[in-house]
Amino acid sequence: MNKIITITTDFGLKDPYQGAMKGAVLSINPKANLVDITHLISSGNILEGALILQDSCGFFPEGTIHVGVVDPGVGSERRPVLIETERYFYIGPDNGLFSLAIRNENIKRAIHLTEKKYFLGEVSNTFHGRDIFGPVAAHLSLGLNPEQFGVEINGLKGLDLPKPVKKDNEITGEIIYIDSFGNLITNIMAEELPENRMVDISLNGFSLKGVSKTYSSAVKGAPLAVISSSGHLEIAVNGGAAKEVLKAKIGEKVRVKAQR
Amino acid sequence: MNKIITITTDFGLKDPYQGAMKGAVLSINPKANLVDITHLISSGNILEGALILQDSCGFFPEGTIHVGVVDPGVGSERRPVLIETERYFYIGPDNGLFSLAIRNENIKRAIHLTEKKYFLGEVSNTFHGRDIFGPVAAHLSLGLNPEQFGVEINGLKGLDLPKPVKKDNEITGEIIYIDSFGNLITNIMAEELPENRMVDISLNGFSLKGVSKTYSSAVKGAPLAVISSSGHLEIAVNGGAAKEVLKAKIGEKVRVKAQR
Amino acid sequence: MNKIITITTDFGLKDPYQGAMKGAVLSINPKANLVDITHLISSGNILEGALILQDSCGFFPEGTIHVGVVDPGVGSERRPVLIETERYFYIGPDNGLFSLAIRNENIKRAIHLTEKKYFLGEVSNTFHGRDIFGPVAAHLSLGLNPEQFGVEINGLKGLDLPKPVKKDNEITGEIIYIDSFGNLITNIMAEELPENRMVDISLNGFSLKGVSKTYSSAVKGAPLAVISSSGHLEIAVNGGAAKEVLKAKIGEKVRVKAQR
Repeated sequence: MNKIITITTDFGLKDPYQGAMKGAVLSINPKANLVDITHLISSGNILEGALILQDSCGFFPEGTIHVGVVDPGVGSERRPVLIETERYFYIGPDNGLFSLAIRNENIKRAIHLTEKKYFLGEVSNTFHGRDIFGPVAAHLSLGLNPEQFGVEINGLKGLDLPKPVKKDNEITGEIIYIDSFGNLITNIMAEELPENRMVDISLNGFSLKGVSKTYSSAVKGAPLAVISSSGHLEIAVNGGAAKEVLKAKIGEKVRVKAQR
Repeated sequence: MNKIITITTDFGLKDPYQGAMKGAVLSINPKANLVDITHLISSGNILEGALILQDSCGFFPEGTIHVGVVDPGVGSERRPVLIETERYFYIGPDNGLFSLAIRNENIKRAIHLTEKKYFLGEVSNTFHGRDIFGPVAAHLSLGLNPEQFGVEINGLKGLDLPKPVKKDNEITGEIIYIDSFGNLITNIMAEELPENRMVDISLNGFSLKGVSKTYSSAVKGAPLAVISSSGHLEIAVNGGAAKEVLKAKIGEKVRVKAQR
Repeated sequence: MNKIITITTDFGLKDPYQGAMKGAVLSINPKANLVDITHLISSGNILEGALILQDSCGFFPEGTIHVGVVDPGVGSERRPVLIETERYFYIGPDNGLFSLAIRNENIKRAIHLTEKKYFLGEVSNTFHGRDIFGPVAAHLSLGLNPEQFGVEINGLKGLDLPKPVKKDNEITGEIIYIDSFGNLITNIMAEELPENRMVDISLNGFSLKGVSKTYSSAVKGAPLAVISSSGHLEIAVNGGAAKEVLKAKIGEKVRVKAQR
């Protein structure tokens, strides 16, 4: 069985939390191959975590165990879960965090994590990454079966993600994520655009023509549209940050109109 | 022998320092399993490093080698040391950095690192992480004995950590760390509180009643007290940052009074 | 063959990019030992990336594969390359990013990466780290020969790095990097200084005498000059940040005069 365990959290990179969680995993399986996706999800921002998991998990080899901890409801009613899909295992809170990553996968089963013998000795009410999710991932990486960790459940929690609206020859979407380059990622997917990509795009009073192949297709400092590496319509600026040049924010509307 | 080496430094995550140090380790033992605890300790802040080591080291498997480099006195008199406890090895400057992590462990021996043949070829005066501590950790992970690295010493340096003051039925402690969620960690430990946890807590003009089980016990935006995952009394805000809501700083007094 | 692959990028630590790239590598070689040098190079800043690679790559064991992705021209004309030197492999864009790291190494050959069968299924125009450089590094780590990835080329791109100017008994250099401690790294190398190190150093209206052995040689808060761990003349402040104390910026002139 594949021993890769990825970790995605909002723990930050300074506090002892991600280190303690890794220690808890390695105490159970010292041979686990831990890979950080990120620990810089904004505190408690489940949607942001879901978007980042969606764009990274699928590149890992089959059998990878993806642990995600963005968990504002830790210690409350929300269920700790293990989701087994045709390709991967996902372990974390049942709060929608994995809902985008698993959207295009067949779910084999979801297990409510109840078997305390696979948790850290004493479970805190504030840190299930270290006390439940990490240890369960470690035991799973040693070859245990998902059903050993609890009872099968249905009805995983989803996320209300804004969907683009189509009307006549116009699509109205919005910015759902801004990356560290200042690129604006929209909720409009490449396959929703006309095949010839002849479109007029407008946001925030700015307008763009067409979809470029590369960032360097526009003159330096000019905005352009590209298809992002994950298939989203993205607004960027060659050699600059679209976020600043276009003064754009998450939630801002983006209109795409087919050219006549 | 366990090959896990954790690294905790104030090197930051952009500069070449932590990469160079890892290279130096892997050049000696390419099979070392390097785990970052953090590289974001505030420059030269030994107490902060000590607190983070205290809350993370203990979760790693026995035999783990913990390297810590927060070393404002690098190149001066302060001794480079290897501390062997009943569970772990600690390698770094003898400046109190490990004093909290080893507080509850039996120390087997402390070695002043003097054997230059286990250092990097030419030792700089500014970067002992790469030139001494990393290489010694790597050689230790290959199975060398602690005594091969130098001479046994006594009298490790400690830290003057502020201690809470008890008077009648009141404990006065202070905030010693603020985490990336804005949670306020105090120097008051769970075991110092009355067993029924019926207390009035005050800081900075705000007052709280009782100790909650989870962050989500309070209404959104309201402050609450919890026991942190490392056993400290912690002040948090459900869905917010206590640091901002309570305008609190490190060193601020926290008063805990048993309810009648 | 050594399986260590280092990664240096400007992807940041929050976005899904570095995680996706690692997934792509591990899907080809699940046993690759991935080591982050940094993901915090300033967006598109090739010189900064080159300086950081120069000061870290050389500490890794022979045969290490160094992948670097600071790639403002991604998707355009610039060539993807694999450079084999006497000690290492370097994989990334041919834009000068590796020019400083390889300066003191003999280059065995440089390969223009053209063999698409070693790329990720469909290559995006915006993310060659995940689609080309990572996969090629992974295949190389499995034992393929450099020539299998494309055709040999000459004329790698260089960088115009500012060089210090010598005149009479004075050297005029400049600050080329400021690290996270606020230390000012200049382009003046230790071997360019008089052997007795008796010099007067001036920058920004401040003047310093001599080169110290350690940071703690000066009184607390006072500026001093040292030789950095990578051999550069460096201006630091004992217990402080030279960047703030001396109000210094990258590009600022530093004058060094031999004392009579």
